[in-house]
Amino acid sequence: MTSKRTDRESTVDGRPLEPRARLRAAFAMAPEALLTQVFSGEQLEELDRRLDLEPAVLQSRSDIERLPGADRLELLITGWGCPVLDEALLERLPALRYVVHSAGSVKPFVTDALWERGIRVSSQAAANAVPVAEYTVAMIVLANKGVFAMARRAQRGEPDPDIRTALADAGNYGKTVGVIGASQIGSLALRMLAAYDLRLLVADPTLDDAGAAALGAQLVPLDVLMRESDVVSVHAPSLPETHGLIGADELHAMRPGATLINTSRAELIDQDALLQVAATGRISAILDLVQPGESGRALARLDNVVVTPHLAGSVGVELHRLGAGVLDEVDRVADGAALRFPIDARNLAHSA
Amino acid sequence: MTSKRTDRESTVDGRPLEPRARLRAAFAMAPEALLTQVFSGEQLEELDRRLDLEPAVLQSRSDIERLPGADRLELLITGWGCPVLDEALLERLPALRYVVHSAGSVKPFVTDALWERGIRVSSQAAANAVPVAEYTVAMIVLANKGVFAMARRAQRGEPDPDIRTALADAGNYGKTVGVIGASQIGSLALRMLAAYDLRLLVADPTLDDAGAAALGAQLVPLDVLMRESDVVSVHAPSLPETHGLIGADELHAMRPGATLINTSRAELIDQDALLQVAATGRISAILDLVQPGESGRALARLDNVVVTPHLAGSVGVELHRLGAGVLDEVDRVADGAALRFPIDARNLAHSA
Repeated sequence: MTSKRTDRESTVDGRPLEPRARLRAAFAMAPEALLTQVFSGEQLEELDRRLDLEPAVLQSRSDIERLPGADRLELLITGWGCPVLDEALLERLPALRYVVHSAGSVKPFVTDALWERGIRVSSQAAANAVPVAEYTVAMIVLANKGVFAMARRAQRGEPDPDIRTALADAGNYGKTVGVIGASQIGSLALRMLAAYDLRLLVADPTLDDAGAAALGAQLVPLDVLMRESDVVSVHAPSLPETHGLIGADELHAMRPGATLINTSRAELIDQDALLQVAATGRISAILDLVQPGESGRALARLDNVVVTPHLAGSVGVELHRLGAGVLDEVDRVADGAALRFPIDARNLAHSA
Repeated sequence: MTSKRTDRESTVDGRPLEPRARLRAAFAMAPEALLTQVFSGEQLEELDRRLDLEPAVLQSRSDIERLPGADRLELLITGWGCPVLDEALLERLPALRYVVHSAGSVKPFVTDALWERGIRVSSQAAANAVPVAEYTVAMIVLANKGVFAMARRAQRGEPDPDIRTALADAGNYGKTVGVIGASQIGSLALRMLAAYDLRLLVADPTLDDAGAAALGAQLVPLDVLMRESDVVSVHAPSLPETHGLIGADELHAMRPGATLINTSRAELIDQDALLQVAATGRISAILDLVQPGESGRALARLDNVVVTPHLAGSVGVELHRLGAGVLDEVDRVADGAALRFPIDARNLAHSA
């Protein structure tokens, strides 16, 4: 990649390029350690080549306010913990034209002031969707095969059951998988699942039949999805109207032996109702997040529930996928091309 | 599917077909209950339309020997538990031309007598490879993300760790996955893994660089694969020379934190050596089969080992994928077309 970029800088169609002024840029995220978690050493070197980079990582509002030359900053590479970019702060950044976010949701820090000033914003929600969709697909495959219950039996030293009987209804062939929310993650999960021999359902009030068909799925109302799916996976945005979306009625409608997967937000599920239904053994659950408190701990102890500590999203080396995405956006800005993943006020309202 | 087949029977390119003599056929598998596990009711009806089917399921040598009209059988649909088709038994089946196997390996029951008589044999190894490859890919994704260790912590009620630290090296981005054996299953797993952001290695003495590249992988010697892979998955055939293929040296060569997956045959791995290395926590393992005895039970109890009861292959509804494959082969035979998955003496020697 290094040599490719050098080529692009030095020539276009064989014509040498004039040396170009690099955009004045800074990182805004906290804690500081995030920088080297998200960006590999090689990625940081590449950014340094493309941009006139402020060395300090801006971790707070006052870091930005006190930064000498803040008035010349044209591009911010933001990350988790970025201070809220409101009108008062943006007055300190009059030259700011681009906000390139190195994580998924920009909701915690964007304000209307950005749109009013015509600042272009991009997010790595697409890159962040990849590990969540990968986790989801893997969990669906293993849930349909009855892997978790069987592995726990083996771990406890119980003799192997007769799998012809114990797994008579198991397997990934003709089973129905329901995806709630054709979000970036939900859509990617459906596209990945299209390679499997599964029947795919999707419930999403913003989707039409053609949109569902393009994802290889059939659009159905939520109650039909809950009733017909062997695995239900929740990928809806966290909005006031989606809180408690999966309540007691929805959980009781699920097929006996079905599995509920949640990688989105804990508050989309009525956790007390889930504990009650799961405790009977009627349905299983795979939860990448639970609400704090006793019901979450009780769910984690159940034999038919798998709880993971919010790791479905980008973890470890997967953070470098976000770094690579930022590098790509910075390349586009430097080349005068359109952002690949632009965010505006309109698409923000419907996103996670 | 029903109407489509009926159409094909009644016309070809608009010309009506003469009623055609259906091949005289029988099922040979044990126990009898397998029949309705492998074939759905609809699939059995389809077979009954295409073939002149003997109603009894032949479960033993003597069932075949005593069958009135055995001398007119032209096609056997075999399954697990099929009696060995040796010269003595084939003398009772002088009209036999096709053996369509409804499972993976035909090794337990085929003999040279079949080839000498020019009997065409087909197997569903390709269909059987699908669930194993799906299980393997799912396990690789979850192993790379550190899911199993984290889920066990949650189950025990331990507080969530700081995942930025605990999973600093986790994730599916740029990680190296090594597949041992470009068997039908190993090859399919590699083709599925090509959609992920992973570096793929393959070790197989029967493969060349071009063959590996066609699978999206780099061909390396076994010792390099063991040393460089974050996950190693074993898909080698069970041959005298592959027993104990993964011994103490290979296991000690693995990266700290790496995971060994075995879905092939337990005897390919030196299980005592694996127990020793895994017990230190240095590597993890996901084993769909263990050799009986104390070392297998001790492995299953380890916190960094997941043991499943030989369920990676076709289970439950996945058996109907084999049924669908048999139906397809029977259609081909009836249409005078070549078998889709022919087995002969040559390819048998290298297969699982």
